[in-house]
Amino acid sequence: MSHYQYKCCQCGESFSSEEIESHLIYLCPECGSAEKEMPLTGVLKIEYDYQLLKKKWQREKFLKLPKGEIWEYPDFYPIEHNQDGKIIGLNSNLLSRIALNKNPLKHFKIDSRKISVFDDTANPTLSYKDRASQLVAIKAIQMGIKEISVASTGNAGSSMAGIAARLGLQSHIFVPKNIPLAKQLQIQSFGAKIYLVDGDYDQAFDLCLKISEEKKFYNRNTAYNPLTIEGKKSGAYDLFLAGKGEMPEVIFVPVGDGVIIAGIFKGLWELHKLGWIEKIPKLVAVQAEGSDALHRFLEEGKFEYQQAKTVADSLCAGAPRNLFLAAEAVKESGGWSMTVSDDEILSAQQAAAQKMGILSEPAAAASLAGWLKAIANGQISGEEKSLILLTGNGLKDATSLEKWNSAPEVKTVEEWKMFFKK
Amino acid sequence: MSHYQYKCCQCGESFSSEEIESHLIYLCPECGSAEKEMPLTGVLKIEYDYQLLKKKWQREKFLKLPKGEIWEYPDFYPIEHNQDGKIIGLNSNLLSRIALNKNPLKHFKIDSRKISVFDDTANPTLSYKDRASQLVAIKAIQMGIKEISVASTGNAGSSMAGIAARLGLQSHIFVPKNIPLAKQLQIQSFGAKIYLVDGDYDQAFDLCLKISEEKKFYNRNTAYNPLTIEGKKSGAYDLFLAGKGEMPEVIFVPVGDGVIIAGIFKGLWELHKLGWIEKIPKLVAVQAEGSDALHRFLEEGKFEYQQAKTVADSLCAGAPRNLFLAAEAVKESGGWSMTVSDDEILSAQQAAAQKMGILSEPAAAASLAGWLKAIANGQISGEEKSLILLTGNGLKDATSLEKWNSAPEVKTVEEWKMFFKK
Repeated sequence: MSHYQYKCCQCGESFSSEEIESHLIYLCPECGSAEKEMPLTGVLKIEYDYQLLKKKWQREKFLKLPKGEIWEYPDFYPIEHNQDGKIIGLNSNLLSRIALNKNPLKHFKIDSRKISVFDDTANPTLSYKDRASQLVAIKAIQMGIKEISVASTGNAGSSMAGIAARLGLQSHIFVPKNIPLAKQLQIQSFGAKIYLVDGDYDQAFDLCLKISEEKKFYNRNTAYNPLTIEGKKSGAYDLFLAGKGEMPEVIFVPVGDGVIIAGIFKGLWELHKLGWIEKIPKLVAVQAEGSDALHRFLEEGKFEYQQAKTVADSLCAGAPRNLFLAAEAVKESGGWSMTVSDDEILSAQQAAAQKMGILSEPAAAASLAGWLKAIANGQISGEEKSLILLTGNGLKDATSLEKWNSAPEVKTVEEWKMFFKK
Repeated sequence: MSHYQYKCCQCGESFSSEEIESHLIYLCPECGSAEKEMPLTGVLKIEYDYQLLKKKWQREKFLKLPKGEIWEYPDFYPIEHNQDGKIIGLNSNLLSRIALNKNPLKHFKIDSRKISVFDDTANPTLSYKDRASQLVAIKAIQMGIKEISVASTGNAGSSMAGIAARLGLQSHIFVPKNIPLAKQLQIQSFGAKIYLVDGDYDQAFDLCLKISEEKKFYNRNTAYNPLTIEGKKSGAYDLFLAGKGEMPEVIFVPVGDGVIIAGIFKGLWELHKLGWIEKIPKLVAVQAEGSDALHRFLEEGKFEYQQAKTVADSLCAGAPRNLFLAAEAVKESGGWSMTVSDDEILSAQQAAAQKMGILSEPAAAASLAGWLKAIANGQISGEEKSLILLTGNGLKDATSLEKWNSAPEVKTVEEWKMFFKK
């Protein structure tokens, strides 16, 4: 008997891990489907025996664990450990190569208001996506699969390519032909096989599913593979550890396809279920105005596909694949959704760099833009314990920095000396 | 009485910390000089009372300290701690913002040979230079100075700018006008004042010294400020902690101005002096063929300025400012110097990305190129415990990645399906 099972988030049906994994099934066998320009249906959630977990672990014991080595805690993830609590199939050398940033929690003041930051800009490939890629890679190793595939607009692909290289796996990355050159170079550099599709992300997504099935690649398509959500829940556990059990009241999360917010909610929900936190923090889904499918879904109660366009390319998702679980995360946590303009995103990117010293990509800075706007709007007073999630490093998209930095003056040595005399 | 003093590495004269610091003196008051296109003379080294340190600390006690928080150990750095061992002037919030990567040591196999990596590509601004910038920033805060200046070809500047922003300080960065756009954008983004000099790095260096003196900026020019060497010694201590006291036999260090190798040697020398390591590992100075002043100095016994040119821009130094201490590090550790071509550097950059999953900048990859060449040349057998230092992230110079990644094929969905049928 495995320590977890899969449960469909739509029809509620449960499946044993053997049923799902031995056939490389990803969505619910009863009701799952992946349709073009539509959110996925039948996304599978992973469930544990929380009574057993509660007995085996205690809050204080858990709080002594090291941060950033989340896969090394037995029982909390859908991977196998031996009787000594060591991950099967990966020795400590392999694990140390993929360890996450161990110092994610930082505290700042902006305009005399306190704000905490969960900083995932210094992970192995410099983004939050490493959390999902790592869990998927560990699972692949335990299943004896050496090739992993993913469709991506750039970031998930570069993350999977980097983590695969660190663990000696081969990755296959399917991307639309017009992804930014820098992200394409990152993917290639890690030795991934890259397939540029003369089409859009949706077509790359579908192609990746088909080829992966034929070739028996392990598929990391976001939300489609339940381990992507499970990997992204680790942020909640690392936050719990880094804050020594003290949690924020409100968390601002940038939302594109909705997997990060759903993952964070899953982790918070588990911590609450275990009785280790009193209350689940409110989750605020921050979307770009030009890519606001979740926000519209929550406001209007229905999904409508619209071509997305925003400077925050990682948030660009006309059809968030994980729409339903993202909506659940917002509603069940008592949070809300909001949109920010591209100008607000770029101005928050500047504030994060100058006032916090953290260079973040536009998609990440959207969370700060949301916090600033929520204060301006009176949605929060600024007295709450708020946390923003910085999900990716600014060097992943240097061109966005050009949008708010003007060309500096050039002077000769003598001219600069005169300048300083004034 | 302070717990350290300054000693000139040329004339051997000693000075109290008060004498040096209260007048913002950097080079030896007796014999120091900073001349254009020449290595610095009179670089000051910091000395501690090693007998006292030995009594106060024991190896096993030290090995229990956390990695990446080196400034928090009292006694080992030229900064002030209170009686409880806490850094004066910086609370834990400020310190957590600048903590280094806590998982620097990783182990790999390349062509069936074991190689360890000291990975500093995930520090706050993604390079080893953060070690120096942090110590300088802490010192500035303790001296009550809010403005820090540095001349740079790009990396030291972006590091100082980022660390200053994290600690609420203002930075002033003097750079030649032709630095790469990405590095310029990094510096600007962090809110630094940037001064583009219509001239070369040497002119920017001299200008920065002059303006800093007039304006009472605290100067971080590399090697000129003794704390840059002292900050860079921290790598040796972090290596000692990460390896649980076990050290490599040979360390390959990329060398431009010679501050990193001198810093590493200082740390190793101290660990040996304290009796905590049996032997100082051999330090191998790896230089680019087009920027080989230290290598020529060691071979020919004299310094000669030559305009430097290499794909590894961070190693580009016609006049390594820290030439004499770098030479001492190589000789006293029993190591050697060597050069690698730009092609060897780029091919090592590729190997680091594909075989280790670490995207490093060309300057960093030079250390791997050195190790590979030393094996090919028979300088080492490959059986030694070797370590390479990866000093900066590849995203700091994405254009170098274009040199070895060709444009991938674009196909329609149907064409890719055919492709996989083969």
